[in-house]
Amino acid sequence: MQAPAKGRVLLSVAGFDPQHWRDMLSAGREVVLERERPVDSSIHYAVVWNRHPGLLSGLPNLKAIFSGGAGVDHLFADPELPDVPIVRVVADNLTQHMSEYVVWRVLDHHRQGFLYRAQQRRKAWIEPPQPPADRVSVGIMGLGELGRAAARALLALGFRVNGWSRSGTPADGVTAYGGGEGLDAFLAATDILVVLLPLTPATKGIIDHALLSKLRRDNPLGGAVLINAGRGLLHNGADILRALDDGVLKEASLDVFETEPLPETSRLWTHERVFVTPHAAAASDPVHLAKSMLEQMDARDRGEPLRNLVDRKAGY
Amino acid sequence: MQAPAKGRVLLSVAGFDPQHWRDMLSAGREVVLERERPVDSSIHYAVVWNRHPGLLSGLPNLKAIFSGGAGVDHLFADPELPDVPIVRVVADNLTQHMSEYVVWRVLDHHRQGFLYRAQQRRKAWIEPPQPPADRVSVGIMGLGELGRAAARALLALGFRVNGWSRSGTPADGVTAYGGGEGLDAFLAATDILVVLLPLTPATKGIIDHALLSKLRRDNPLGGAVLINAGRGLLHNGADILRALDDGVLKEASLDVFETEPLPETSRLWTHERVFVTPHAAAASDPVHLAKSMLEQMDARDRGEPLRNLVDRKAGY
Repeated sequence: MQAPAKGRVLLSVAGFDPQHWRDMLSAGREVVLERERPVDSSIHYAVVWNRHPGLLSGLPNLKAIFSGGAGVDHLFADPELPDVPIVRVVADNLTQHMSEYVVWRVLDHHRQGFLYRAQQRRKAWIEPPQPPADRVSVGIMGLGELGRAAARALLALGFRVNGWSRSGTPADGVTAYGGGEGLDAFLAATDILVVLLPLTPATKGIIDHALLSKLRRDNPLGGAVLINAGRGLLHNGADILRALDDGVLKEASLDVFETEPLPETSRLWTHERVFVTPHAAAASDPVHLAKSMLEQMDARDRGEPLRNLVDRKAGY
Repeated sequence: MQAPAKGRVLLSVAGFDPQHWRDMLSAGREVVLERERPVDSSIHYAVVWNRHPGLLSGLPNLKAIFSGGAGVDHLFADPELPDVPIVRVVADNLTQHMSEYVVWRVLDHHRQGFLYRAQQRRKAWIEPPQPPADRVSVGIMGLGELGRAAARALLALGFRVNGWSRSGTPADGVTAYGGGEGLDAFLAATDILVVLLPLTPATKGIIDHALLSKLRRDNPLGGAVLINAGRGLLHNGADILRALDDGVLKEASLDVFETEPLPETSRLWTHERVFVTPHAAAASDPVHLAKSMLEQMDARDRGEPLRNLVDRKAGY
């Protein structure tokens, strides 16, 4: 007896080549890159990244939507988003990459990489005072999978870690702050701010000049530091430049931007105290992710519950 | 009844201002910066860093010598070194600083900091492939206090860690290699070489072109990387430059040099794939160290054994 054919997968991504994803997902199911007709009942699952509104309407048998990368704000931008479960990306590999990025950037600011690189350019042999890690507080906004893993890695290196989330999520070793009322206290206790928030209507543009000016300025590093590895629309780039120029911020590492690729005209490219990476903090690795997606699709077909579901009301 | 006066401490350091050390040590004992006569029986302990030969002869009551920083090669350069116990610097603070430096430099090479900084200068939005940490092998030469702590921090971030030492010291999670016969295998399995060896007649100049050319070149980072945070005389700077230029090495981070400060004429300052810091990986912090030294002096006066003694035969 032949097993019934599995429902097809619609793979629709923008910003990167789908070929590798297609190869990986094809190991388990038939994959199509485009819908063939206005109403297509052959498609049971969709793997989507940054696509246009309306893409997923007219799929009567759609059982779940998988986000092709960390973050689901790209889905909620679609007013016709079908009312089916949305699965977040959770992969050890992606979490590991993000922790590496956060530790790398925190250490580069903590150990004065910007200063040493400038000194090297003028052949200056000068050792500035170096505060120990246990005098430096890293504050992480967003304590999901990624934020908690970054916190653990920083704690292991001896940093003090504060965490802020909507609900004040507790985490081992982390001084937790929650909600609007906890935000000011969190910022006042933070020397290096790491942004790993989801992008929702409540967090859009949250990293502005007013927020940055509440960070601890009289700090052992000589000034506050911003690291945004979450979403570009969480921050206001013009405000970051103003904060760097008026002394509110000492330095920034930015992996995400309001417009990507970062336009050539942006002064963020050329500011001597900004480090830019091209949304590369934690790339989604198709090898790890596609395997996990196929497993979840098969589980759903067997009637088992899906894991890592998005809370539609919260928006992440 | 008055306690007997404690023996005096000779504090003699070169390369940094002794004032802070003097303040710290004076909390427990009378401290002198110079000997007052050819034979001085009032001095019971010496705290020394990089001083001239003969400094410590003619001190008949000298009970122990404390090194003012990590490494004791500066003492063995003295043919008149008295035959009294030599205490190494071991301080959580110094170990912590060194682990930070090693993790910082490993991550900067692993996460392609040199490439991203070059791309930023030409406003290039390009994401190169990023290997996961578990495909990258960091090889640590020297598995003492500092090497083992660095290994733990790197293992926690998911790197593979090899270790090489004279005796093949085992360490948790580390693939250990030992002695001359283990060196080639260690190098062939290593992508990022971290040098934390003591400087002895056996290790002087060990990091030369022949050794570097045995590192794994077909590696996930696209080339071998050298990080020297041990002693400058362990390496041959001209060989490092040759290895960078002929493709044996991809990049290097150097904190120590054959001549310090690094001469302005050295091409290590200007090579685009070398990162230079001014012997700043792990500064000795007088607050932590002086306290530990005073405790050891008092213990010795009570007839208790000294800890962290140097093995004169091994030279470290």
